[in-house]
Amino acid sequence: MEITPDPARATRPGGRTARVRAAVLTAAGDVLAEHGYAGLDLADVAQRAGVGKTTVYRRWGSVTGLVVDLLAEMAESSAPRADTGTLLGDLTANARLVRRTLADRRQGPLFRAVIAASISAPETAGALHRFYAARVAEWAPCVTDALDRGEVPAGTDADEVVRAVSAPLYYRMLTTALPLSVAVADRAAEAVTTAARAGAYVRGAGR
Amino acid sequence: MEITPDPARATRPGGRTARVRAAVLTAAGDVLAEHGYAGLDLADVAQRAGVGKTTVYRRWGSVTGLVVDLLAEMAESSAPRADTGTLLGDLTANARLVRRTLADRRQGPLFRAVIAASISAPETAGALHRFYAARVAEWAPCVTDALDRGEVPAGTDADEVVRAVSAPLYYRMLTTALPLSVAVADRAAEAVTTAARAGAYVRGAGR
Repeated sequence: MEITPDPARATRPGGRTARVRAAVLTAAGDVLAEHGYAGLDLADVAQRAGVGKTTVYRRWGSVTGLVVDLLAEMAESSAPRADTGTLLGDLTANARLVRRTLADRRQGPLFRAVIAASISAPETAGALHRFYAARVAEWAPCVTDALDRGEVPAGTDADEVVRAVSAPLYYRMLTTALPLSVAVADRAAEAVTTAARAGAYVRGAGR
Repeated sequence: MEITPDPARATRPGGRTARVRAAVLTAAGDVLAEHGYAGLDLADVAQRAGVGKTTVYRRWGSVTGLVVDLLAEMAESSAPRADTGTLLGDLTANARLVRRTLADRRQGPLFRAVIAASISAPETAGALHRFYAARVAEWAPCVTDALDRGEVPAGTDADEVVRAVSAPLYYRMLTTALPLSVAVADRAAEAVTTAARAGAYVRGAGR
């Protein structure tokens, strides 16, 4: 399981193995977005991907194997951090990216499906956690840069700041029917920036 | 579907209908906590509750009907708001309550199961949203009281403040394997209080 991009894979997009993987994972993502985790079926995925059923069974083994590899691929291919020169600018870019993803017609249902999968099939939870760890690691330098610029106090927990930006967007999506507007994303970034500047994310006992 | 306590029901705990409902919903919660939404089965719930299968089928109809009624009951019976005299005190009490619930051996898996259910079975999502709306309505007066005391600026969106306290705890539970410590809860309350005082939750365009 990789949580960082594999340059070898990225520079050999034409390999047959890579093409089969891309087709199968795209099909798996489509099925998850349309029918959820309970609707995921290896034979269906193979047919949509135009790949032999045997290949899919041999390589991924089960629907949970497919979800685990899809999450690894999502971690490998997700967008790089922003670098706007200010913490508010970077966190706003992060919040808007998360909002765009969750509000997207395919990506939104896909993210809800992999969250449901990680609850219903705990063997996929580790892969989900690695995906989010990779996203946090990609964006944490926005906070350490802010620390170097003196925007936030020493000891600020960069990972916690990054997670705090996404949290209200996910919570809103999962627990309400309220829309995920750009203004909501901007507020999340603004609130976290304000709290971070005031030292709310400085590491302390038990944190 | 009720989202506020029904005083008539609360004062007639001995009625047979109420006793059957309590036994069935407790059994349904146990099954959800142990086996998740996919493991929920009406016949199994009836047997655990010591109630006839026909009664359960007639009254709840389906597993989704059972989840919807369980969420209604959770909304009816959940804990009242704190009133400590300060916004930080009230939000800390709220964050600690949410943390205790999510870290609890039965309640944690139960909450994850109903979130997974609301994704996998969208007909239960409305009931989940009503449960969270009831929780937000119960705690929002902590923020309007703070507004009356001049702790937060006019126009502060009380519902958004309350949701912002829970969000990092749910996000941590769903996307990481990190522990839900009391310190994490306290930080959530502190960060949101700081941002609220600074005006980050004042209603604006698109919010």
